[in-house]
Amino acid sequence: MRRIYLDNAASTPVDPQVLEILTRTSLECYGNASSMHSDGTRAKELLEYARSGLASVVNCHPEELYFTSGGTEANNWALKGFCLANRSKGNHIIISSIEHDCILNSCRWLQKQGFIITIVPVDGFGITQPDILERAISDKTILVSVMHVNNELGTIQPIAEIGRIAHEKKVAFHTDACQSFGKIPLDAGELAADMISINAHKIYGPKGVGALFIRKGTDIEPLLHGGGQEQGIRSTTENIPGITAFVKAAEVCHSVQFEEQVRIDHLSGKLRDNLFRRFENVYFNGSPEHNIPGIVNFSFSGQEGQAIRLLLMLDEEGISVSAGSACSSNHEGSGGSHVLRAIGRDPVESRGAVRVSIGRYNTESDIEQFCDSLTRIMQKLNPIYSF
Amino acid sequence: MRRIYLDNAASTPVDPQVLEILTRTSLECYGNASSMHSDGTRAKELLEYARSGLASVVNCHPEELYFTSGGTEANNWALKGFCLANRSKGNHIIISSIEHDCILNSCRWLQKQGFIITIVPVDGFGITQPDILERAISDKTILVSVMHVNNELGTIQPIAEIGRIAHEKKVAFHTDACQSFGKIPLDAGELAADMISINAHKIYGPKGVGALFIRKGTDIEPLLHGGGQEQGIRSTTENIPGITAFVKAAEVCHSVQFEEQVRIDHLSGKLRDNLFRRFENVYFNGSPEHNIPGIVNFSFSGQEGQAIRLLLMLDEEGISVSAGSACSSNHEGSGGSHVLRAIGRDPVESRGAVRVSIGRYNTESDIEQFCDSLTRIMQKLNPIYSF
Repeated sequence: MRRIYLDNAASTPVDPQVLEILTRTSLECYGNASSMHSDGTRAKELLEYARSGLASVVNCHPEELYFTSGGTEANNWALKGFCLANRSKGNHIIISSIEHDCILNSCRWLQKQGFIITIVPVDGFGITQPDILERAISDKTILVSVMHVNNELGTIQPIAEIGRIAHEKKVAFHTDACQSFGKIPLDAGELAADMISINAHKIYGPKGVGALFIRKGTDIEPLLHGGGQEQGIRSTTENIPGITAFVKAAEVCHSVQFEEQVRIDHLSGKLRDNLFRRFENVYFNGSPEHNIPGIVNFSFSGQEGQAIRLLLMLDEEGISVSAGSACSSNHEGSGGSHVLRAIGRDPVESRGAVRVSIGRYNTESDIEQFCDSLTRIMQKLNPIYSF
Repeated sequence: MRRIYLDNAASTPVDPQVLEILTRTSLECYGNASSMHSDGTRAKELLEYARSGLASVVNCHPEELYFTSGGTEANNWALKGFCLANRSKGNHIIISSIEHDCILNSCRWLQKQGFIITIVPVDGFGITQPDILERAISDKTILVSVMHVNNELGTIQPIAEIGRIAHEKKVAFHTDACQSFGKIPLDAGELAADMISINAHKIYGPKGVGALFIRKGTDIEPLLHGGGQEQGIRSTTENIPGITAFVKAAEVCHSVQFEEQVRIDHLSGKLRDNLFRRFENVYFNGSPEHNIPGIVNFSFSGQEGQAIRLLLMLDEEGISVSAGSACSSNHEGSGGSHVLRAIGRDPVESRGAVRVSIGRYNTESDIEQFCDSLTRIMQKLNPIYSF
């Protein structure tokens, strides 16, 4: 039985073209990019070629891109590295209430180092309000960090405006773009962002690779100290196979972005219509207007307590979807998803959402089969209830 | 022309069996190991299976192994994570003078956070003296970190004794085993070490993967905060393809370790004999008794200034060797290698060493060709001098 994978926001299958680059580079280019001989210089050239390729996609200078081991490292580095380097300028950081755990937990660590964190709320649709954020900025504020797209709801945050506000107030701005990069436009040249985190495994690239864009002139401390790779601020032997594969994945996503956006938006619409038509107690979490195509987060009113059971029954039918984010699925206790709490859901409701995330390899038939399976399961779970 | 790669201490070619695992896992197991559905649980199972495999090789409990993005992260984490978590017990750290840059620079960062670092010297052969180290321990000392095998010289450090001394004094002991793991025995069960760093790309595994052994009961802070993977102390979506490939590489190395040790030791001996016979001004850096098979570090007396030229001429003949370590080759300024300085070489001598590192894919013929090329080059460099 072919499984139907509808959890692309958690991680994506690897694009075969990307895997080919990964394999070929592993075989042909194993030299250490810091070595002086040809095996090293070839690796170094490939690294810089990849960096230029990614710079074209992101629209920045190649030397503003630093490769990391993924989005978590990029986010940890951006927050800790920037705040520790700029401590003399102030000790106040502002984030939104729906940031990823790696931002929240980096902030908790910074709090222990003497920083003060303000968490600004989002509205009921999961959108950060720029005017509230603006009022939170004080003369002690050194950094604002708001994600581009929320991983659970798919809501697109007004980062252009937030960046502008931060810069007007002479405050640095970081955005975690791990859930948007490769799916909707992201332009470092246009955006008033000093740091942008991106990663590979959500765009059909390899796991264990990401990057942090750091605008020229931004002071940041290393998170990984060592041999002085990546212009001296991110040490470790460069993972050339992973990096070249990441950049290939980014280039492919960039080249098909518009048509994929339209196609996936159509599939998301079909899914929402179907759910709305079939289940009278369904409600959607997120924003009807400002949502990335591909993430559909919904609950069944009065039946939120059955979400995990529903998920496992879908799994038995060969369908992979998620309740909230993958990262938090095993960890969030009785309080449920902090993102759903942030949009005003109670603890029971916050454990009761289903996140379907549609990707490049999904088809109309996947959506139909998902809706049919879900209908069967809901009938089993609620035999009295008529659909 | 087939190149002769004699820089295996910098990085190794990927074992084809390892690459197959990397490719297969990338294709078949792309789920996020934190997801609750079968694609996630299968990834999680594979992760734990890999962890058990590595635990058998290292001789520890699987839950004492935490996967990282490589040796640099493992070393940064061990030092910073341990020291920050144990600050209340003391603020003194002891390391040897020949540690890798990632240890040295992590210590420099810790120094800025109020820690005091003692760097104990090594003898002229590049061996840390346990009695000197013992005298450096005070009641403020919380951590001793001495590498297992030095990456430039190949010297094996007396870590069994150092670990014993540290534990007698109730001080934690960390060893960077990135250059020894998979090549000579390393047994976490026998060794009095609380933390051990290992990595993949020096044992015919993929780049971008490593692990930190943390003995049960050791207090350590996360370096990467986030979704709470790896028992809550090392967050990021797990790189299952990289991890399974790493463990395959470790298992293969473990299974052929003894015979490879003998074979490579024979090749190293042959190289040393040849150099000694052909060049009357050659001298070796390192220890004749306590050296890992495969690393031969030598210089030509009075001609140290020509090492880089020699290296590039060897490269033109299709041979890759290194001057010092790969990481430091582009960075170390006029002072030369800090390792050679530590064994008493002057600045000129410290820039003048050649490191040949022999690996699994090298043969007798590689050593012969290397010696022949070197002879030709030395004749070109010194036409008057007779060999």
